[in-house]
Amino acid sequence: MRVLGIDCGSEYTGYGVVEETSERKLLCHVNGAIKLKSGTPMAVKLEKIFTDIKAIIAQHQPEIMAIEDVFYAINVKSALKLGQVRGVAMLAASTSGLQVAEYSPLSIKSAVVGYGRADKFQVQQMVTRLLNLAAAPEPTDASDALAIAICHIHTAATNNRYQAASR
Amino acid sequence: MRVLGIDCGSEYTGYGVVEETSERKLLCHVNGAIKLKSGTPMAVKLEKIFTDIKAIIAQHQPEIMAIEDVFYAINVKSALKLGQVRGVAMLAASTSGLQVAEYSPLSIKSAVVGYGRADKFQVQQMVTRLLNLAAAPEPTDASDALAIAICHIHTAATNNRYQAASR
Repeated sequence: MRVLGIDCGSEYTGYGVVEETSERKLLCHVNGAIKLKSGTPMAVKLEKIFTDIKAIIAQHQPEIMAIEDVFYAINVKSALKLGQVRGVAMLAASTSGLQVAEYSPLSIKSAVVGYGRADKFQVQQMVTRLLNLAAAPEPTDASDALAIAICHIHTAATNNRYQAASR
Repeated sequence: MRVLGIDCGSEYTGYGVVEETSERKLLCHVNGAIKLKSGTPMAVKLEKIFTDIKAIIAQHQPEIMAIEDVFYAINVKSALKLGQVRGVAMLAASTSGLQVAEYSPLSIKSAVVGYGRADKFQVQQMVTRLLNLAAAPEPTDASDALAIAICHIHTAATNNRYQAASR
């Protein structure tokens, strides 16, 4: 299973493609962050996010996209901005034929660190270890995106085991 | 000048294409609302908005898109939803080569009704009269979209007169 994790933000949008190999090892194909230049018109920023995510999907061929299910934000203004980025990221997946899975921040942190209140740096450290990376992914938006992808892989594995046990 | 007005909403997204003719008359080419089915996955809803707006642009060839500049919403959750729709609408314009102009609710109502605190039905009546329509555009999301387009035409005309006077 190969998963694209996306961590939406109005300045940096993190991405990471994680694969679970047939030996059940986790492999990182790519990770990074799309930086939006401040002062650029919003429509141009959104086009960059859309184009970049479509290119990542085309190059790394994930089967599904996973994103954080956000129900809170600092305020309404930042929620509107974040929503714009999130909408375009979901559209990039949908127009590439990918379904979108959403996970709460609590599920993501629990899946990776085993503790729902972990901070960005704990997530970064655990992601580095789980994916056996030589260096910590930077910026933390990139490690957050990898954590979202890992969360989806863990959840899918649990669901499969549950279904197998129910048969 | 031919303008596409878009009124974003998480249930209905209104649209309207208005042209100012060489005799300075306002002409409505099309108006309506894109309805999003509740229960449909968000990514699928967003794809519908994107596809429909792109099709309206391709068919009616506006030169610019005008939208409402929203800085408030009922709460953070609805702001995130509205932001998603808004982001995708802006992307539809941008990927069709159109610039996006944003106007505050106050400017839009003032431009159409001459009064910034006008309600949706006053806007609907004035839009019907200004565009010389046989019937009021329905739903009000459609008349709001036409009002946004008219606001852009008025603002552009004022800017042109100002620039001519400054020469």
